[in-house]
Formats: sequence, structure tokens, C-alpha cells
Amino acid sequence: MVPLTCKGFTACGMAAGIKKNGSLDLGMLVSDRPARVAAVFTRNRVQAAPVKLDRERVKSGSARAVIVNAGNANCANGPQGLIAAEAMAAAAARVLNLPDEQVLVASTGVIGAPFPIHKVEAAMPALAGGLSPNGLPDLARAIMTTDTRPKTGAREGSLDGVSYRIVAVAKGAGMIRPDMATMLCFICTDADIPVSNIQMVLKRSVDGSFNRITIDGDSSTNDTVILLANGASGARIETDNDRVDFQRLLDDLCMDLARQMVKDGEGVTKVVDLTVCGARSDEDARAIADTIAHSPLVKTAFFGEDANWGRIIAAAGRAGVFLDPERLDLYFDDVQMVKDGTGCGPDAEEKATGVLKKPEFSVALDLNQGEGTASMLTCDFSLDYVKINADYRS
Amino acid sequence: MVPLTCKGFTACGMAAGIKKNGSLDLGMLVSDRPARVAAVFTRNRVQAAPVKLDRERVKSGSARAVIVNAGNANCANGPQGLIAAEAMAAAAARVLNLPDEQVLVASTGVIGAPFPIHKVEAAMPALAGGLSPNGLPDLARAIMTTDTRPKTGAREGSLDGVSYRIVAVAKGAGMIRPDMATMLCFICTDADIPVSNIQMVLKRSVDGSFNRITIDGDSSTNDTVILLANGASGARIETDNDRVDFQRLLDDLCMDLARQMVKDGEGVTKVVDLTVCGARSDEDARAIADTIAHSPLVKTAFFGEDANWGRIIAAAGRAGVFLDPERLDLYFDDVQMVKDGTGCGPDAEEKATGVLKKPEFSVALDLNQGEGTASMLTCDFSLDYVKINADYRS
Repeated sequence: MVPLTCKGFTACGMAAGIKKNGSLDLGMLVSDRPARVAAVFTRNRVQAAPVKLDRERVKSGSARAVIVNAGNANCANGPQGLIAAEAMAAAAARVLNLPDEQVLVASTGVIGAPFPIHKVEAAMPALAGGLSPNGLPDLARAIMTTDTRPKTGAREGSLDGVSYRIVAVAKGAGMIRPDMATMLCFICTDADIPVSNIQMVLKRSVDGSFNRITIDGDSSTNDTVILLANGASGARIETDNDRVDFQRLLDDLCMDLARQMVKDGEGVTKVVDLTVCGARSDEDARAIADTIAHSPLVKTAFFGEDANWGRIIAAAGRAGVFLDPERLDLYFDDVQMVKDGTGCGPDAEEKATGVLKKPEFSVALDLNQGEGTASMLTCDFSLDYVKINADYRS
Repeated sequence: MVPLTCKGFTACGMAAGIKKNGSLDLGMLVSDRPARVAAVFTRNRVQAAPVKLDRERVKSGSARAVIVNAGNANCANGPQGLIAAEAMAAAAARVLNLPDEQVLVASTGVIGAPFPIHKVEAAMPALAGGLSPNGLPDLARAIMTTDTRPKTGAREGSLDGVSYRIVAVAKGAGMIRPDMATMLCFICTDADIPVSNIQMVLKRSVDGSFNRITIDGDSSTNDTVILLANGASGARIETDNDRVDFQRLLDDLCMDLARQMVKDGEGVTKVVDLTVCGARSDEDARAIADTIAHSPLVKTAFFGEDANWGRIIAAAGRAGVFLDPERLDLYFDDVQMVKDGTGCGPDAEEKATGVLKKPEFSVALDLNQGEGTASMLTCDFSLDYVKINADYRS
């Protein structure tokens, strides 16, 4: 296991009283030198104040710190929201002795509740005092909302004989869909990445990981992925090969975190690798995968460990793209359930029911009419999902 | 209350052993004379065998009978499915002494299970023997699947001093979305409707009712609405005014049945009249209404009686159409929750929580940027929805 530390970065997390239950709710990530920055944000038209602030600030291409809270999304708070986000950054900048513009902000939690900026400001000296190279696990805990486990990951690589790390913390367990999952993720690396590449590299990893998972199909107002690269290791990405090596590690790290999110999805008991292939185009395949992955009937059947393939093909049929129902093949892991649009009988069904009893399995739908493919990581829809979300604010 | 009978029509329902639990599962509706026919079917690309058969048969513009079963959808059964649907119609035609082509077929239930045609054929003499002018309530019960209550309605009108009736039975409690709800509905009238109008009249009523309700966003392979008009009352639609009068009654009847479906939706505890207005176009309004109505987070908040308006505006924001978050107004019944994109505070929240405790209430989102409107009838997402659908086949 690669340790969860990264040269030149310190982090911390503490309880500032934003959450009612007294658990960690405020965190900070700081680079001891200027870092290049890349970021990907929610595509929701309703955007939280910190997202609006960060969008502007990352344009400079560099940042030194991220201040983040859980328990309040600072969204739909009118002009006061942006004022609070700016004040939050300013308070952090003050204790860190940095210009305001070098501090990014993120928030997660309930939408539309007035933001408790005074609690954040009051906590700031203690927060800065807690900064430590070993503080990333606390930061991971401080950004949890309905997450039951902190989500972290680390990878190690080397460039020209100089080793470097990529280390990340993330949160996300509901309001997740492929158009950027509902989540926060802060990634730091001590490699140096040219400013011309960093946004492209991050975007590519996000598209291949966080943008391909779904828990409930909802997307949030606060989704943010930030990558800080401070070069403290001395490793430097210079050639295309270097970039490919780094990209591979970052892809792997992001997919690891994405899988952690689905596994810890609200009420999730089944993690499902869904593939649609043989479509007339990748877009068609994606539309069908998306419809299957979000179908409440499919998801409740997964929860019930019921190999109810009829619901899967019915969902495919309403995806709004052409398909020939009599050419559909469907597999649960290696068990073929449907051939040419017709069920493979009781034997297949019995085997498939065995597959569905596993906590993780794959579902593959082959349309047999082209080369288009898409894959998604999805999950079941359980009693606990409803319980969690009916009670979340109370 | 208008009685559930209609001149010249007989109906019946019986238990033919298709459902495991011994409840009614086979029904028939017969006109004693040729009737004009109109029909609307599912838009799902995967279509059950009876839908394929009926699509051809209704082209003649007339029909005499409908034979229908619950407990098996006769879908995804390969060539055997169509053979079974034809045999089902032929068996009914034989006992009724009609040409095969005058008999329509409908099925509802599990997809992909071999169709028990022999049970249907064996039951046919008893079924025909049970036909009665008072048989519509039994027919309504024979088409139930996860429905907890039969769904029926009747309206009475008059044309030129001659009174007529429109009477309907329907089923549908899950796999329901606006692209034609997952449902069966058989409507009979003893008025005479010109063949040039009947399809248009039915389509219009379906668009305004069944196509505007949603329970879980899934659509089925078997959705069918059939209207039979036999003219037995002597009332005849001749003028445009006559047509408008008839349309109004049929609209009202279909909306009544649509509301019955949502009320009896799987696990439903809240029925919600959702309106989106002030959009740049009706299409924009519809996209937003659709996204809100299908959001699991919004629906679980309704179940939790939680006035969590942030989830509603977050859902609106991801609908893929332009909106200005700072102009949004949101109402629960008459209580304004959000003004200019910002919450109206604890008083409004307390009042809104009172609204959400009611079994039926309205939610209205005003975008304040145009004249586009859309309305939908939706519902909450409860623990029982998950229980019902995780256990449905077992």
C-alpha cells in the first residue's frame, strides 16, 4: 500500500459544529509552495457558491490551498452565499498568510440552509494549527455526509528515476449520476505537470471514472474535483510517454475512488459493472446503459437478487434509440440469460440467480447490430436508500 | 354515480390458473355488434406479442371483442409469443362465433415467461359463459397485477337528446412513465363515433391523462388503450360540438383513471400535482417537470414529508435546459418556499411541512423567464415500492 502522504502537502480535519452530530465537518489541504491546478465542476445549472468562486479562481492555473466543509452546501443562499464562500477563503488565507485568490473553497451538505460562516471563521486558527503531512485521513473524514466510510487512495510512479505520488480523498454516496458524480474529490501530486496538460489529464480521468458511475441518477450543485500538482518530488512530466504514465496512474486512482463511492452508495448492497455493446454507435450504447442503470425496476430487482431480465430489456427498449428486440443477448457474468431476445430457460435462470447473490457482478447486453459500446458502474436500489433519503434532513 | 354498464357490451373475468395465487386473471369484453375501434400502444421498442397483433388488427377500424390476461406479459417469447397471442384470439373467436380478426388481445404480467396458452384455451368456454352486462367489475379485477384496487370509471352524456355512456376499466401501478403509462385500459361507449375521428379523439385524451402520469419512470412492453364504440345507444357524434362534448367526457374519464393509477401506484403514499411554468418553451417546461418527477431524491423527500426544496431545484438544474437559478420561485400548495432562487425561511418551511403531511398536494416551480408550462401527476418513492419490486416475481 502506498502511504497517504504527498511531499509538500499538509492537511487536516476537525469538528467545527456545522454538522449537528459533532463529527468532523471542516478540512483543509495546503501545498507548501505554489501548485498548478486543474478542476472539473458540476454541469448542473444550479451551482453552489463555492463552485462559482472556484471556477473563476482556477483560471489563474495555480493555487495553494483548499478549504472545505460538510454539513451545508452553501447553495441557493442568494448573494449571501457568495459572500460566505469568499469569507471562508479569506479566513483560510489569513491564517495561512496567502493571497485570497490562492485559496479554493468547497462545500457539501444540505442545500438552501443559511451558511454558518461564523463557525468556520471561529474554527480557522485551530484548523490551521492541525495541519500535518499525515492529515489526509482526517480531511477524508471531514468531507463525509451520508458516506459510511472515508474514501482515499494513493499511487506511486517514477519519471526518469525520480519517484512521485498521486494521493486523493473523496466523498460521495448519493445524488450521483454520470454527468459528473455528486461528489468532492481532492487530488494532490508531488509531480510537476506542465500547465498546458494538467486540465486535459484531469478531464480524461474524470470522464473515465466519476462520469461513469451512478447511484440514484441525481446530480448535485456542488460537484468538484480539484487536482493540485506542486512538483515537490522533483519528478517532472516532460515527454508524451511521461504523460501517458501519469495518466494511467491517475485513471486508476480515480476509478478506484469511483468504485469506493458506488460500494458505499446510499443503501447499496450490489455493485454492478454494466456493459452495453453491439450498438449502432457509442452514443446509442450510452443512452441504453444510462436507461438501464437508472431504472428503478431494474435496480430493485438487483436488490431482490431476482434475475428479472425482462426489466432490463424493457428499459433498453425505452431508451429512445433503435434496437432490434429479436437480436438481444444478455449475460449476468458468464451466464447467458437471453439469446436472440428470448429467455434461455430455467437452467440459465437458476445460474443467474446464483450470480445475483454476489455483492459484485457484471451485466452485459449485446445488441448485435454494430460496434458501439458503453460501460457504467451502477448499483441496486434498496430499502435503506429510501430510509436514508426520507430521513436525511430530520 | 353512473353505473358501470354500457349498452350492447358484456364482460367477464375469471381465474384461469395463470396467476399462482388463484385470483382472477382472464377477462373478456364483447360488443354484441360491430364496433369502431381506436387504440394507442406503448412506444417501447420492445413490444409484447399481443401489441404486435393488435397493431395490425385495429387497422381495419372495427373490432368485436378483447381477450385479456394478467400474470404473463407474453413478451420476449420469440416466435412462440405471436403464435400464442393468435391462438388466444382464435380461441375467443371460436366460442364467440366471430372471425379471428375481430378479436383483440392484451396481456400483462411477467416478461419472458413461456405463455400458458393451454390454460387460456381450456378456460374459454367458462369465460364466454360468464359474459354479462354487469361483468365489467370482474374484468377490472382480472387485469390487476400489483394493483391493490380495481380501476373503473363511467361517464354519461347526451347528443341530440339521446343519452350515451363511456365506461372504462384499467390497470397500472408500476412501470409507469409519461411515454404512455404502463397500463391497460379498455374503454367502451354506446355512442357512435365516425371512423375519421375516433383515433384522434382517443389519442388526445391519452396525451392529456395517461401520458402525463409517472410512478417510477419505467415504461412497459405491453401498454395498450383500446376504445370500442358500438353506437348501441343511438347517440351519434355528427357535429364538431358533439365531438367536443364527447372529448370532454373522455378526457375527464381518462384523467380519473390516471389519477386512480397514481394513487394506487406501487407503495405510493403521496400524490403530487406538479406544474412547471415560466419556461422558455413548453418543451423546456416538460423536460424539467420530467426530471423532477423522476428524481429519486425528490420522491424520497416526499415520502419523508420533508420540504427539501433544494432537491427540487437541483433536479431542475440537471434537466439539460437553460434556467436562471436566481429567478426560481417554488410553491407547495399555496406556500411559497423559494423566491428568486433563495429559501423563504423557517416559517415557510414549517407551513410547507404541513402541506407535505397531506396525501395529495401540489408543487409549482415558476422559472420566470417565459410562457412555457407543463404539468404532471407524480408520487413519492417509498419503502414499500422497493419491497414490492424486489419481491415481485418470488
